[in-house]
Amino acid sequence: MPHDQTSGRVLLVGAGPGDVDLMTVRAVREVQAAEALLYDALVSEDVLALAPRACLKIQTGKRANQSSMNQDTINRLMLRLARRGLRVVRLKGGDPSVFGRSGEEAAFLRAHDIAVEVVPGVTAVSAAAAQFAFPLTHRRSARRLVLATARVEQGALITEGWPTMAEPDATLALYMSRDSLGAVSAALIAAGRAATTPALAIENAGRPCARAIHGELGSLAERLDQARCTGPVVVVIGEVAALAPSFAEAARSDADLGSPRHAAAG
Amino acid sequence: MPHDQTSGRVLLVGAGPGDVDLMTVRAVREVQAAEALLYDALVSEDVLALAPRACLKIQTGKRANQSSMNQDTINRLMLRLARRGLRVVRLKGGDPSVFGRSGEEAAFLRAHDIAVEVVPGVTAVSAAAAQFAFPLTHRRSARRLVLATARVEQGALITEGWPTMAEPDATLALYMSRDSLGAVSAALIAAGRAATTPALAIENAGRPCARAIHGELGSLAERLDQARCTGPVVVVIGEVAALAPSFAEAARSDADLGSPRHAAAG
Repeated sequence: MPHDQTSGRVLLVGAGPGDVDLMTVRAVREVQAAEALLYDALVSEDVLALAPRACLKIQTGKRANQSSMNQDTINRLMLRLARRGLRVVRLKGGDPSVFGRSGEEAAFLRAHDIAVEVVPGVTAVSAAAAQFAFPLTHRRSARRLVLATARVEQGALITEGWPTMAEPDATLALYMSRDSLGAVSAALIAAGRAATTPALAIENAGRPCARAIHGELGSLAERLDQARCTGPVVVVIGEVAALAPSFAEAARSDADLGSPRHAAAG
Repeated sequence: MPHDQTSGRVLLVGAGPGDVDLMTVRAVREVQAAEALLYDALVSEDVLALAPRACLKIQTGKRANQSSMNQDTINRLMLRLARRGLRVVRLKGGDPSVFGRSGEEAAFLRAHDIAVEVVPGVTAVSAAAAQFAFPLTHRRSARRLVLATARVEQGALITEGWPTMAEPDATLALYMSRDSLGAVSAALIAAGRAATTPALAIENAGRPCARAIHGELGSLAERLDQARCTGPVVVVIGEVAALAPSFAEAARSDADLGSPRHAAAG
């Protein structure tokens, strides 16, 4: 294969959490200039609306339990479009470098002489923290931030490495783990993390329709089930969760629920 | 203190890595509308230039080894400016929720009846990964991303918790740890992480002047010393570092240095 500059180029672009306001300036510009756009299911309608009318828009799928294009098909499609000389934008929710398979896609494209550029984005947990006004690190109580995802193989949760996330001074951000939160919580508690650790699940983080479900590590999975979320969820486990103003409010209203209404004190 | 809406408001805004192109759309808008801007030393000139001429601009300092305003002074200043009814923007490099003390500042302001809003930003390690085209998570080899900073108390590195970061399948991103990298590397190796783990230090991540220093966990601190960085540095330790195309190039040119020039093969 000839090593020249004309083999094509693909941009791996982070769309951020969904609100155009939270995209980077460059990401907006690249989507506006795209000739072919391959996008994940997590990319919002508002973001897609930035693309030109004539742009070829291809959804590559990837919502839990729904059929989607497999990685090989996506790779070949990017390659074909880039070789045609089109300005190809591969658009991913959040930051493409974090749980976005950007490494695999970039390696495939480079192996076929396609130049790859990456545009970073605001990752879901940063959007969640900003929107609900709690920090991800905090003096003394949260010295580290761990971004992880539950790994399920043959129906069983792989808990290798979980003990390290059970440390009390780490904030744990769980991506794509809505359906496995019960198993994850049990693993963390078994590894020594307190069941009373503040925990927060944020659905649609960074979007106007976002909502936060508050709880403790031991109870959040049940609450999340009851909340029947359909959007993407990021879970934050750690003392920082309790610093969200809505957390204190939720605790108050829980107390209210348990006491006669007329007697509820602020 | 009266609980009304007129006590004032402060926006904690993430400026991202320094390039205006990598700010969020909303962050740009908020800086452009600011009446008082309190900014960290890591905020670039380009970003500051977005603020209106009439905006009061106050540098709050915070570069290693340089005197800077203490946190209490910053807090009081924000409070005074917000109470005057000014549109106050507290601008921080990267994402304010990650090692940005946003929790402390928000708590202080809310305790004084100032409304706080947070605008997220692209954090340094996301910018570094995008710019040098390596992923932060990767199937099998990098299942987790840990953001941490070296904590030095009374001259000694506190290595509590480091064993958990020594796991081979975690990517470790170290913030503000340029001067302590030698001690940190030794602690990680002592805790079991291989000295040959690929490692990368990125100075000025996300800016046009960025540069990457490649090495292995056991050798990076020395290389970083030789590189005499003056800008902010983020260090990435883990198998993903070797996926940066520049990493392979650096390894090749190291090999070239060790062999006669005329014999160097591509």
